[in-house]
Amino acid sequence: MPTILGQNQYGKAENRVVKITRDGDTHHIKDLNVSVALSGDMDDVHYSGSNANVLPTDTTKNTVFAFAKEHGIESAEQFGIHLARHFVSSQEPIHRARIRIEEYAWERIATSDGNSRFIGADDVKHSFARKGQETRVTQITYDGESWEVISGLKDLTVMNSTNSEFWGYVKDKYTTLKEAYDRILATDVSARWRYNWTSDEQRMPNWEKSYEQARKHMLQAFAETYSLSLQQTLYQMGSRIINSRSEIDEIRFSLPNNHHFLVDLEPFGLKNDHEVYFAADRPYGLIEATVLRDGVEPKIPVDMTNL
Amino acid sequence: MPTILGQNQYGKAENRVVKITRDGDTHHIKDLNVSVALSGDMDDVHYSGSNANVLPTDTTKNTVFAFAKEHGIESAEQFGIHLARHFVSSQEPIHRARIRIEEYAWERIATSDGNSRFIGADDVKHSFARKGQETRVTQITYDGESWEVISGLKDLTVMNSTNSEFWGYVKDKYTTLKEAYDRILATDVSARWRYNWTSDEQRMPNWEKSYEQARKHMLQAFAETYSLSLQQTLYQMGSRIINSRSEIDEIRFSLPNNHHFLVDLEPFGLKNDHEVYFAADRPYGLIEATVLRDGVEPKIPVDMTNL
Amino acid sequence: MPTILGQNQYGKAENRVVKITRDGDTHHIKDLNVSVALSGDMDDVHYSGSNANVLPTDTTKNTVFAFAKEHGIESAEQFGIHLARHFVSSQEPIHRARIRIEEYAWERIATSDGNSRFIGADDVKHSFARKGQETRVTQITYDGESWEVISGLKDLTVMNSTNSEFWGYVKDKYTTLKEAYDRILATDVSARWRYNWTSDEQRMPNWEKSYEQARKHMLQAFAETYSLSLQQTLYQMGSRIINSRSEIDEIRFSLPNNHHFLVDLEPFGLKNDHEVYFAADRPYGLIEATVLRDGVEPKIPVDMTNL
Amino acid sequence: MPTILGQNQYGKAENRVVKITRDGDTHHIKDLNVSVALSGDMDDVHYSGSNANVLPTDTTKNTVFAFAKEHGIESAEQFGIHLARHFVSSQEPIHRARIRIEEYAWERIATSDGNSRFIGADDVKHSFARKGQETRVTQITYDGESWEVISGLKDLTVMNSTNSEFWGYVKDKYTTLKEAYDRILATDVSARWRYNWTSDEQRMPNWEKSYEQARKHMLQAFAETYSLSLQQTLYQMGSRIINSRSEIDEIRFSLPNNHHFLVDLEPFGLKNDHEVYFAADRPYGLIEATVLRDGVEPKIPVDMTNL
Repeated sequence: MPTILGQNQYGKAENRVVKITRDGDTHHIKDLNVSVALSGDMDDVHYSGSNANVLPTDTTKNTVFAFAKEHGIESAEQFGIHLARHFVSSQEPIHRARIRIEEYAWERIATSDGNSRFIGADDVKHSFARKGQETRVTQITYDGESWEVISGLKDLTVMNSTNSEFWGYVKDKYTTLKEAYDRILATDVSARWRYNWTSDEQRMPNWEKSYEQARKHMLQAFAETYSLSLQQTLYQMGSRIINSRSEIDEIRFSLPNNHHFLVDLEPFGLKNDHEVYFAADRPYGLIEATVLRDGVEPKIPVDMTNL
Repeated sequence: MPTILGQNQYGKAENRVVKITRDGDTHHIKDLNVSVALSGDMDDVHYSGSNANVLPTDTTKNTVFAFAKEHGIESAEQFGIHLARHFVSSQEPIHRARIRIEEYAWERIATSDGNSRFIGADDVKHSFARKGQETRVTQITYDGESWEVISGLKDLTVMNSTNSEFWGYVKDKYTTLKEAYDRILATDVSARWRYNWTSDEQRMPNWEKSYEQARKHMLQAFAETYSLSLQQTLYQMGSRIINSRSEIDEIRFSLPNNHHFLVDLEPFGLKNDHEVYFAADRPYGLIEATVLRDGVEPKIPVDMTNL
Repeated sequence: MPTILGQNQYGKAENRVVKITRDGDTHHIKDLNVSVALSGDMDDVHYSGSNANVLPTDTTKNTVFAFAKEHGIESAEQFGIHLARHFVSSQEPIHRARIRIEEYAWERIATSDGNSRFIGADDVKHSFARKGQETRVTQITYDGESWEVISGLKDLTVMNSTNSEFWGYVKDKYTTLKEAYDRILATDVSARWRYNWTSDEQRMPNWEKSYEQARKHMLQAFAETYSLSLQQTLYQMGSRIINSRSEIDEIRFSLPNNHHFLVDLEPFGLKNDHEVYFAADRPYGLIEATVLRDGVEPKIPVDMTNL
Repeated sequence: MPTILGQNQYGKAENRVVKITRDGDTHHIKDLNVSVALSGDMDDVHYSGSNANVLPTDTTKNTVFAFAKEHGIESAEQFGIHLARHFVSSQEPIHRARIRIEEYAWERIATSDGNSRFIGADDVKHSFARKGQETRVTQITYDGESWEVISGLKDLTVMNSTNSEFWGYVKDKYTTLKEAYDRILATDVSARWRYNWTSDEQRMPNWEKSYEQARKHMLQAFAETYSLSLQQTLYQMGSRIINSRSEIDEIRFSLPNNHHFLVDLEPFGLKNDHEVYFAADRPYGLIEATVLRDGVEPKIPVDMTNL
């Protein structure tokens, strides 16, 4: 046989599980999109179609819903850890499980004209609006011995309306771009950070707090950096997270440069003093890089932020 | 000639204009997607290709950007009024202008660990994150004499995790649905409300406040209604707006019933007491209706909420 | 009560039904997305939540799948007629049914290196690839007395790489566009045509042949028209259909002008003689018009081509 | 400094270039979406914001359009090779260029009622419809010494309406799936194959023919395999390509299992003998694997088929 099987994996993708937890009248939501990918002794199913080692993808789906009840959903990361451990430890032919989760955030609908963060006695306690901003993501991989947890977010659109320049670059025969000394810097942040936790289940990070803090530091670095290039801003965002969060060792960004072009209003006798911009769709600059704690090995795949 | 021309319109769609207003160090953003549709004496361009009456769509695009400078963008509605008036009054062959606008909201990035709604002395004042929740929409139509303003929102996803029932319905030979006494009620709100303002430019509504209040009343009605059907909830949402806002006479909703099915966990020996749901994609129920102030004529097209 | 209910409708949207018909070894596919909208005596469900007149949307879904078996799917139009008649005639409170259908075309995978249109003795007869070009659409409306059938297509992308000009238009103070004497004309055709058949079920049009012929005439008119404006091309496309097909009285188009801008290569010492274009996304011109058989009343809603 | 920069790249993504070639009256189209990613000595731009080594992404965009004129577009692969060689050889700080291209196919509009593949004397020769089936893709990577060419396709939806079974799988406590002895097998093919050509520019593969043949063999294997699992079908598709095309050494597939569930019509007194199916959206099985020529090293990244 002149061909052989290489790396392979299978599972059920995009299981949309919503978990309601009732604390008296007060309800809490977890809204996840869970994808399972399993690998192991799977030669036969590819070569001959024998399913003797195959746990059906339908079963992996059932397991996701059953585990939402059996283990609850404390955090996306913790939920993924329960699932990955189960598949690897309960099925001998499965040597590795990778669980990818997207999480959608909800906020309470304020009914007593107060702040939605605090629920008063008169508030409705089971009514929610989806936040609709970034999507939180995580990927849990387990091989029976150690864990890899890569978390992050995507589709968080941010903009600095000033404090961004771009000049001093290489000019070749195809260069027509004018240097810019005050431009809009806008991007849709896609970030994945890797935790250095790998094994001791008694010393897991606090996943919820870590997410919230990493997001906050990243946004503050974006806002506070006077930018000479989107690359510089990216590096500051990554560096800020690693310097602030000891549990994170590596972060990979994919940042489109969402171009906002200053519109030429001179033909109409108008001066455009950094006021009116055209927001373009395509093409866009695309800046991708990894930032690492000094001394650690990079492990996040370079294309992972697009998944 | 056995065929004739019927209703027609043309213009430039989806002009993405971003306007930055600088109040000292403090910046403000308006982020709009503006579509222009013009109609009038346009027989010749269809019959013979003569463009003698045609203001190019490229010119309508230029006008959008120029007007963002000349008139500023106080609100989407006010901006649309400037544009519609201009096209009808400056071009004799143009008898009607319809301006559709989508508006995307942004919030400030908090840099001093405070609440993003209030900017402190230490905060960065030019840095924003896109809110990403609902899209605000408006449509301004002007025929040289009177105005029609229809505003609203789309893609506002909401959920009540209880206080929703569905029973007592018609059963025919194709009915298999079980009656439900406690279900999730979730939808993506698409709403369009019509203002009764038509002409006196000195007595225009406060568009910004009206939007904010209509949205608030609608959400509170959604949260506070104990629901026996999505139709009933819809009617309460519309009725609440009209009773609360004298400037609004009519509202049209399109509400998909985002089904959340209680997962059967009995095969796994687990009881699912309204905890674990499967969020389905398709098919979905679709409930559409108009709510009117008693005595007024309906004018919102029945399919408009899908646009 | 200061508010009242206006027009309303409800049903199950986007039922994805696939029907396989076996003719010996040779299989045939119909792949539809069916949306049901019903209206009638529905005041109570909105005012009080009483579902006594409500046939559940779940039942309308079941009916779609059951009818695929009971009646087969001869054409999307015929299938919609069966469904609409059933809902109106079997449920007293339902006065009107509107069935919208999208149809996705498939072609056979050629296995004996022949033409996929003809199946030979050695060909696999149950293997298909989705064509993926336009989506065919239809809308059937029935009120118990007469029928309205509006069919058409969407997302059919076409391009003329020459024989298109644009000049002689109005110039105002916001006009900067240069006149064009040889440009690309490209659009994504969305068309809806109305049949004049309303009642005699013995004399229905041949829906499959009518679709195929209307599509062919429309495309040929697009190709053969030397265009001075997209409006002129649109009118020729509509006129050709009405003149060729006596069963069609009216057609509504929505045609985005998919701009292809000639790239300025002079800075690089290159001449661009209508060779290299940049295909832009937004904004785009949008041309919409109805073409009618002389003497008939227009009935297609003006925004219907966007649905 | 406790953080360092890891792998990074930048460039202009999604340059939409359309090239018209005129052969007398007969026009030809190439319609590409080209993304450029460059890497090399880029520490400074990340650490300090110095752009001294940065060729602007705007320049990479200009280069794409200029090269469409200077070199023409013989094939997507050949075009990518021209671009990659240029960036690496003309800019000392750039050590690696990766060009990703999507290609959209067009077919001629038949005007003389003939077959669109052959143009007659009376046919319009500049009028096209976008095929709209699969998107052809390629990725060219060059480091100044050797080439890596990975080509393929995505979004090619295929279906076998019979000759597919699934049984004999592992059953655990979460398994409820019934075994299937006649099911629909449907998927959206995403495939990436790697050419073993790396250096000798005189002996490049014929990229156009290779694509056409690889696609044909893959589809025929899909059609002709009596399937006991989607994994088995995948392996046959990959194996067929490698056995038929000596220039291809490795292929990676990502195949969603587009579930078509047989609808239970028994409650309505109907028998469903593999006729009426519900086409589901989410969740879906996802089968991913690499097939290799025996003895070669795998080099296609495992997540590449999702890009």
